[in-house]
Amino acid sequence: MFSEKHKTAGVTYPQGFKAAGVRAGIKKNGNLDVALIYTEKVAVVAGVFTQNQVAAAPVHVSKVVVGTGLAHAVVANAGCANACTGEQGLHDAERMAEIAAQELNCRADDVIVASTGVIGVNLPMDKMEAGIKTAARELSKDGSVNAGNAIITTDTYSKACATEIEIDGKEVRLGAIAKGSGMIMPNMATMLCFITTDVDIDQKLLQEALSEITEVSFNMLTVDGDTSTNDMVVIMANGAAGNVKITEKNADYVKFYAALKEMCIELAKRIAADGEGATKFITINVSGAQNFADAKKIGMALLVKTSLFGEDSNWGRVICAIGYSGVKINPDKITIKYGGIPVYANGVGVKFNAEDMKKILSAKDIIIDIELEIGAANATIWTCDTSFLYVKINADYTT
Amino acid sequence: MFSEKHKTAGVTYPQGFKAAGVRAGIKKNGNLDVALIYTEKVAVVAGVFTQNQVAAAPVHVSKVVVGTGLAHAVVANAGCANACTGEQGLHDAERMAEIAAQELNCRADDVIVASTGVIGVNLPMDKMEAGIKTAARELSKDGSVNAGNAIITTDTYSKACATEIEIDGKEVRLGAIAKGSGMIMPNMATMLCFITTDVDIDQKLLQEALSEITEVSFNMLTVDGDTSTNDMVVIMANGAAGNVKITEKNADYVKFYAALKEMCIELAKRIAADGEGATKFITINVSGAQNFADAKKIGMALLVKTSLFGEDSNWGRVICAIGYSGVKINPDKITIKYGGIPVYANGVGVKFNAEDMKKILSAKDIIIDIELEIGAANATIWTCDTSFLYVKINADYTT
Repeated sequence: MFSEKHKTAGVTYPQGFKAAGVRAGIKKNGNLDVALIYTEKVAVVAGVFTQNQVAAAPVHVSKVVVGTGLAHAVVANAGCANACTGEQGLHDAERMAEIAAQELNCRADDVIVASTGVIGVNLPMDKMEAGIKTAARELSKDGSVNAGNAIITTDTYSKACATEIEIDGKEVRLGAIAKGSGMIMPNMATMLCFITTDVDIDQKLLQEALSEITEVSFNMLTVDGDTSTNDMVVIMANGAAGNVKITEKNADYVKFYAALKEMCIELAKRIAADGEGATKFITINVSGAQNFADAKKIGMALLVKTSLFGEDSNWGRVICAIGYSGVKINPDKITIKYGGIPVYANGVGVKFNAEDMKKILSAKDIIIDIELEIGAANATIWTCDTSFLYVKINADYTT
Repeated sequence: MFSEKHKTAGVTYPQGFKAAGVRAGIKKNGNLDVALIYTEKVAVVAGVFTQNQVAAAPVHVSKVVVGTGLAHAVVANAGCANACTGEQGLHDAERMAEIAAQELNCRADDVIVASTGVIGVNLPMDKMEAGIKTAARELSKDGSVNAGNAIITTDTYSKACATEIEIDGKEVRLGAIAKGSGMIMPNMATMLCFITTDVDIDQKLLQEALSEITEVSFNMLTVDGDTSTNDMVVIMANGAAGNVKITEKNADYVKFYAALKEMCIELAKRIAADGEGATKFITINVSGAQNFADAKKIGMALLVKTSLFGEDSNWGRVICAIGYSGVKINPDKITIKYGGIPVYANGVGVKFNAEDMKKILSAKDIIIDIELEIGAANATIWTCDTSFLYVKINADYTT
């Protein structure tokens, strides 16, 4: 579904959106670091933000923008998180919006602001100002790839995708760029995702859809509440597709919802697969739980695992993590499978063919199934292995 | 306070206790792996056990022993955890007690059983039987060092200490051996601690003291509830010191309590310093919290850090972890200090001398102070850095 063309188009795939990514000198390595996304026509906007009590300045500013229900642009940078920067940080985040608004001839309170990078350092506002001005000049329908590259930090590649659906005979498009990285210790992993769409939709419905979908996509990557100071997912819908405006949960809403959900899950999976130091992509399916929260809690308890890096079939760690997840379980009813092969059932280990297991654990994609046999709810979590490289990335982060 | 002599004496320092540690061939590397601790006179016993819902067979067996209030011996092995081993595992744990009882001429339900090692593998009972028999023959006043070495797994050294106090003009002695390792992912870290004392004390008071002291010593190492399938702390008091029996919380109780607490904290600190792959010992002092639970929660949130391994002063991760710890905080009131030097205050970073900070972070012992300024409660947590070696140990565990 997500072709190369779609990935390249990204946030500029929907009608009426342009983007740019430029070098402003904020990243030490000299890579692209300031991104701009612009909608010609003002868009309704929805957003989901970090629940960390220590939220960064741009989060405070962007929450106000989402509160107005309208947005005209996103300005974002990597290399400096503008978090724990006090009054100066708030002022700088507001200035980012003002500079962008001036260049784009729109209102500053219609500009979403985002930052990612090192915490506790003030933004170099001279570089930022020059960067935003250059980005505004370079805005184009081909700018999504650069914008995507300008928001990444320790990601090994930029995540982008796009898709289209038909509503009322009109083609409705969606596009997105995202960055993640740092699965196991998500406090280091600012997750940013900017979504664009030309659908015409009521703002409240858009917010409801985004909040619900975030729960089963991006929030299945990170331990509950363990969000970074800077996380945000923002969607702008500018109505350029010309569909009959979606104002209730009708068939059009369902279609749009499904497309948005598929795109967010795709991005979440790609963020997991590209976790810091990842060598394996791991899908954890938890089923038979009493409710979604319990199923998720158990899956999340498994995130603190290193066993898969060593391609090690020590399911003891999995059952141990389930035992302390805080969810009421019956160890004797649980079945654990690696790549479809049962390794634990009826309270004890299950003998398996070592060669078959080696094949499963040496693959890049690994699926772990956990059947609790307590209820009917389930949850799927995506993660990656922790490796030596992961430790190294974190240890060296500011040095 | 804890001299070499005390460490060497360990569990045999109190009167009337003997110990042994032998090679039974359960550890793959051929090291000592079966330990026996014996009290000539039956002792009152108290214990604290894992809260993991997937508790190992020996935990089930030993809980019953502690329930009777009396114990005559401890039999323990490393190399195989006898966890997730079903009916067979329970039977094997009971057999361990029976074999020891037969050799020691005591009741099987007075024998504490403990195991640590790989999960999901049955005990090699032939080797175990031979090992227990040899250990019973080798019991001696010099056996504590061998017993200590027989219970370690990935620990780099065995932890032991001993101390004495005077009660009613009688010398009362305490001794202990402990094993830990695996600080950050405590599900891999079976924590075992066996304490002996010749004090004469009421069993209920002994249990109360042990439970309370565990809360502020061993439980300050591990994330709440994230205990391994096999964790236990057991104390046997055989009354051989001949003091007037402690039956209420009088001055004698306070003296004994203080000595036991000091010993448990010393062992907890040493376990932290020897965490898997540890290169640094880290003390986290949290003060100004509304209550102990909040202070502990914040300290524990910091356990998932890798920053100190890189000797990196990125306090952003610390404030970020505090922000998602789940404790209500005011980021603007918090002060964070590394080695006494403020790095964060009033919502922003504090400039510090880079050379001074380098000295502090390159030391083996590092103290982090977190002042919340919300209430009057505090907590101290001990931990270690995570290093490359840590990841390696876990990845290779069963291979």
